[in-house]
Amino acid sequence: MRAYDFDGATAIDQVGDRWHATIAEGWDMGGVPNGGYQLSIASRAILAVTGRRDVVALSSSYLSPGHPGNVEIEVEVLPSRGKRHTACTATLRQDDTPTMVVQAISGELPDDGEQHLWETSPPPLGPPEQYPRLLPRPPSTLPPRLAEHVELRLPVEQVGFAFGKAHGAPTTIGWTKFPDDRPLDTLSLPLFVDAFPPAVFNTGGVIGWVPTLTLSIQIRRRPKGPWLSASFRSRFIDETYVEEDGELWDTDGTLVALSRQLALAPRGS
Amino acid sequence: MRAYDFDGATAIDQVGDRWHATIAEGWDMGGVPNGGYQLSIASRAILAVTGRRDVVALSSSYLSPGHPGNVEIEVEVLPSRGKRHTACTATLRQDDTPTMVVQAISGELPDDGEQHLWETSPPPLGPPEQYPRLLPRPPSTLPPRLAEHVELRLPVEQVGFAFGKAHGAPTTIGWTKFPDDRPLDTLSLPLFVDAFPPAVFNTGGVIGWVPTLTLSIQIRRRPKGPWLSASFRSRFIDETYVEEDGELWDTDGTLVALSRQLALAPRGS
Repeated sequence: MRAYDFDGATAIDQVGDRWHATIAEGWDMGGVPNGGYQLSIASRAILAVTGRRDVVALSSSYLSPGHPGNVEIEVEVLPSRGKRHTACTATLRQDDTPTMVVQAISGELPDDGEQHLWETSPPPLGPPEQYPRLLPRPPSTLPPRLAEHVELRLPVEQVGFAFGKAHGAPTTIGWTKFPDDRPLDTLSLPLFVDAFPPAVFNTGGVIGWVPTLTLSIQIRRRPKGPWLSASFRSRFIDETYVEEDGELWDTDGTLVALSRQLALAPRGS
Repeated sequence: MRAYDFDGATAIDQVGDRWHATIAEGWDMGGVPNGGYQLSIASRAILAVTGRRDVVALSSSYLSPGHPGNVEIEVEVLPSRGKRHTACTATLRQDDTPTMVVQAISGELPDDGEQHLWETSPPPLGPPEQYPRLLPRPPSTLPPRLAEHVELRLPVEQVGFAFGKAHGAPTTIGWTKFPDDRPLDTLSLPLFVDAFPPAVFNTGGVIGWVPTLTLSIQIRRRPKGPWLSASFRSRFIDETYVEEDGELWDTDGTLVALSRQLALAPRGS
């Protein structure tokens, strides 16, 4: 079996009633391990404990940024009345301090079936190969080092903010996949929903740290991939907070995941 | 001090390191206590424990429907790096069984400041008084008994589904407030975001139980009221799941709260 980058970086080991993992170097944005990546690690432990095939809903609160190195995951299954889903909480701890708490609903997603979409559709993109790949250019922190592990291909105007040419709308669209073509699954979706440049950067305001407070994800289908198209938008920005709603779509136009973040509005450093 | 209906129905008492409340009769939909109402009770305990003024973000998972009567609330404050917010979890238990788990971020919302809105605005409604109030008509379960405690005034076409005249879009708009004109606060917003008829009913499909799995809320402003306008829409409906995104607006056009539910798609009984 081929060793995929993502599987190595999200591997878990059972130690008593806890799970251990290692937050890998380089899966970060400006030195802080990506929150979606950490949520994929948590999802692996959640599926191991619940014995379910798919994570269906996740809500996480980020308590402190975490760092590369050991992380302990504690999963508590909660009794619930429905037989179709298993509810649980997961707590990630580093150095005995909780860094992230998660609520999850897991189950088994349908393989197909009609989706009724209202006033939404996959983002208007050409084939992924026509767009340049974002790659880190150290010592610049943009694009982040995470872009080595998540292939991002965006129309050039989507990253115009990086050279003073923000397109002006609080939206970002683009393509993503694993660089090593690892097959997609529900486990990998938390990583992808949190890997794109913040949509708020495209308003032309401050480019700075946008710390996530909470991230919620609904997963609707097992992605077929290898490419996912993504759209993000921040419809309500104020001086303190910004939300970001994301959609991940399969290449056949199926919605595979919805996300919503609450973050602090970016500030200059 | 006037005794408002909502304050009586969400009163909490400290008992050791737990909080006790009583889920009141009649705050229900088809016999099941409203999830938003229960989340308002939880929010009261969260603010009491954290000493913060406002709940800023809430994510809840519903484990079992609960029932009128005693409920115990356990709040655990989580250490977090930011000084501006306090993170915590809350667990509601009835008969020693957890019925709901909550993650919350609390803090102090800004009193004013500009909001940058993108492709959204308050729903197109006339003055609330021009619309009829939804009131329960027992033994019918629609409108629910909750409508005695939450005043709902909707354009008649918004509830056309109840007499076979669904308007066809997965959207619902209308006005809400407390019937006794209790002043609004952030504590009351979880109730209001969960009190409207499900937007999915307006598609013309099955009218049936739509059990909420998870409800997430972002609160942006202390509402001035007394009226709130609300819009809800379900953009991604499949045979198994439906999401519902809500927005609550103050009468001056300020966004006060965003909500997102994941629910099971309605099924015939």
